[in-house]
Amino acid sequence: MTLDADLRQRIIQSVADGFDDQIAFTQELVRMPSLRGHEHPVQDLLHRSLQSRGYAMDRFQMDHAAIAAHPGGSKISDDHSDAPIVVGIHHPREEAGRSLILQSHLDVVPEGLHDMWSDPPFSAKIDGDWMYGRGAGDMKAGAAANIFALDALRRIGLQPAATVYVQSVVEEESTGNGALQTYLQGYTADAVFIPEPEEEMLVRANVGVLWFQVQLRGVPKHVREMGEGANAIDAATRVTAALRQIEAEWNADKANHRHFENETHPINLNIGKIEGGDWASSVPSWCNIDCRVSLYPGHSADDAAAEITDRIAAFAAADGFLSNNPPKVVFNGFYAEGYVLEEGTEAEAVLGRAHEAAIGAPLKSFMTPSYLDTRVYALYNKIPALCYGPISRNIHGIDECVSLPSVQRITAAMALFIAEWCGLEACES
Amino acid sequence: MTLDADLRQRIIQSVADGFDDQIAFTQELVRMPSLRGHEHPVQDLLHRSLQSRGYAMDRFQMDHAAIAAHPGGSKISDDHSDAPIVVGIHHPREEAGRSLILQSHLDVVPEGLHDMWSDPPFSAKIDGDWMYGRGAGDMKAGAAANIFALDALRRIGLQPAATVYVQSVVEEESTGNGALQTYLQGYTADAVFIPEPEEEMLVRANVGVLWFQVQLRGVPKHVREMGEGANAIDAATRVTAALRQIEAEWNADKANHRHFENETHPINLNIGKIEGGDWASSVPSWCNIDCRVSLYPGHSADDAAAEITDRIAAFAAADGFLSNNPPKVVFNGFYAEGYVLEEGTEAEAVLGRAHEAAIGAPLKSFMTPSYLDTRVYALYNKIPALCYGPISRNIHGIDECVSLPSVQRITAAMALFIAEWCGLEACES
Repeated sequence: MTLDADLRQRIIQSVADGFDDQIAFTQELVRMPSLRGHEHPVQDLLHRSLQSRGYAMDRFQMDHAAIAAHPGGSKISDDHSDAPIVVGIHHPREEAGRSLILQSHLDVVPEGLHDMWSDPPFSAKIDGDWMYGRGAGDMKAGAAANIFALDALRRIGLQPAATVYVQSVVEEESTGNGALQTYLQGYTADAVFIPEPEEEMLVRANVGVLWFQVQLRGVPKHVREMGEGANAIDAATRVTAALRQIEAEWNADKANHRHFENETHPINLNIGKIEGGDWASSVPSWCNIDCRVSLYPGHSADDAAAEITDRIAAFAAADGFLSNNPPKVVFNGFYAEGYVLEEGTEAEAVLGRAHEAAIGAPLKSFMTPSYLDTRVYALYNKIPALCYGPISRNIHGIDECVSLPSVQRITAAMALFIAEWCGLEACES
Repeated sequence: MTLDADLRQRIIQSVADGFDDQIAFTQELVRMPSLRGHEHPVQDLLHRSLQSRGYAMDRFQMDHAAIAAHPGGSKISDDHSDAPIVVGIHHPREEAGRSLILQSHLDVVPEGLHDMWSDPPFSAKIDGDWMYGRGAGDMKAGAAANIFALDALRRIGLQPAATVYVQSVVEEESTGNGALQTYLQGYTADAVFIPEPEEEMLVRANVGVLWFQVQLRGVPKHVREMGEGANAIDAATRVTAALRQIEAEWNADKANHRHFENETHPINLNIGKIEGGDWASSVPSWCNIDCRVSLYPGHSADDAAAEITDRIAAFAAADGFLSNNPPKVVFNGFYAEGYVLEEGTEAEAVLGRAHEAAIGAPLKSFMTPSYLDTRVYALYNKIPALCYGPISRNIHGIDECVSLPSVQRITAAMALFIAEWCGLEACES
């Protein structure tokens, strides 16, 4: 059922009425430094927040063996989080509408050098329309929106007329194994909605992502005999150049990938971290580079990984030094494939109406060249996977912030979406 | 006085008679992991060893302010060792001969990746003619030789007829401030002898060394917006290329530097350590490279440092990204100039005779392109500075080892040198 204009206005007003509380809760989330492996307290806060609202609760660990056995399982390194996954469950009195998963992730990426930030990175400071902090946009604002969109309906005596799972995961920034575990646990629905910071647009297509570390070893020598010593840092520079060739070839193939044809540079290879050597005066004996590369939808992680491994091996075989010291390639995180949200789903049509009612303009869609947990739902649950959320600045960067007026708009759009997708019934009270 | 053949043979035999003990003491030194800042116990062992032999003892700290004020003072970073300097002092009954400093250093460079070593890096394992271990060659064998050369004379009832200082320092591998402190403390003599692992040859000329860190900052971004983000690791690669130009220019000037004309590549720039970025999926916001470069004798540290700083600044000004994020250059260790041991000194003639008697071939000299503490004595004490020591393999590398037959030969040469340089008198007993 489409919503009548009066109900739409009451829902939008109810989101506005709850927005001060929503901001305060978002700040509480942002203030917790939930870096990888350190998401326990923020997940427990989510658990308390959902439980106190009366949702049935489930909390479970990631199953390393099951993840490893699944084609969508990313590689588990020593850095992998063991924080639990939290699900709050709403059951309607009568299962009349379409069920829904509202997902968020509460892990955040490293904050970078603190002295580059205008305020401490977990300050949650509000300045004008913007709330600042690592994770403010990506995606603690969305995590709060999941809860407060449902709260807005309750405030006017309504609740979804279908099962809704509010799923809070971790490991979104490094493997996507948290979202995969909800699938392995058996959670599914008629659609999933993830309010990542997507500039009030819908993600039409999304790349896969691989993480890998190239481990180079040199033969250390006294610097006085530098000519004889192999330099592992220089070797890393040469291997990086070889990797840039793969990146260039994959980008050159963009015409063959729908939704990516018009992107200037759809495939990004990032050398995100480097560590090598022990001492200025010794020729460095080792160097590790941590890399992240994206894949077009349809490019299998196994094929891409094999191509990377083979190309590095071939480059090394032809390199004077590396031929005697072949580098090791270790896939140590994301091993995830891309997806396309095919046009024409009913879920997208419902979101289009909700967006237009809340924001006053037609819904736009776009391609985003970064990992998203929606890939689990698109590829394995095989359900419409909507990734749509607020305007942000500098996610993963310095002075990350999220637009609070935008958060309010997209929360209204989410509440309207839930109302139409799930249908509504009167609250139990 | 030159030594008669019979006395020479008695000295050589006495070194042989004490060599098992010398090996055991060398192993004791090698087993101590005296990395930078961790030389306290090995310096205390030296102190006990000298004191138990009856030497007068002095032990003192490095004076940071005095070092900073001296033109030969290297830069003091947070990593600077505060282990003490130890001096054992022999005074003759009658000051008849020429005084002498026997110096060694007991700091060692990092051992590198343990899994690349055949045996643990501080094993001091003996296999055939070789003793293995980090520091075995550089220069714990020499440190023991200083003591056991004097012991060999005592064993036959003789001692130097002049003051001898046995000086054990630290910070040789990173600043040379330990040796400088002995100068600042007032220690000097008619010559200095440092048994570094120099392949049974005399060092004729030696480079200066500078350490510096280039600190690069980028503007971190989500990798999905990589094109907008400045990548600090890529910037480090570009700066390295600019530094390689300085290295090439300095090498091209070798014809103007006596003793360096025939070296293929006398000036080495080593990028010894690199660290940058936090996370595979974030464009790295920072990268630091630790560099070591050598200087011809006569090239002032200040001039070289200014040239490096200015060239990096000029390169950065012309670089699209770096012009907005100028790198910082921090001199954080060696700030030391090179020296030449001029030919024709009496000290060299005495060593020539000692070498020929112990080893049976004429003494050769050579240029060595690495830092040596002898620079302090050559440049500031202005005394003949002899650097001469045993055959080694892989110093600063994996499976560092020292030739034990060579250690015995050079210990004999040292004992003969001491006997002729200082003269001899009967031991007090």
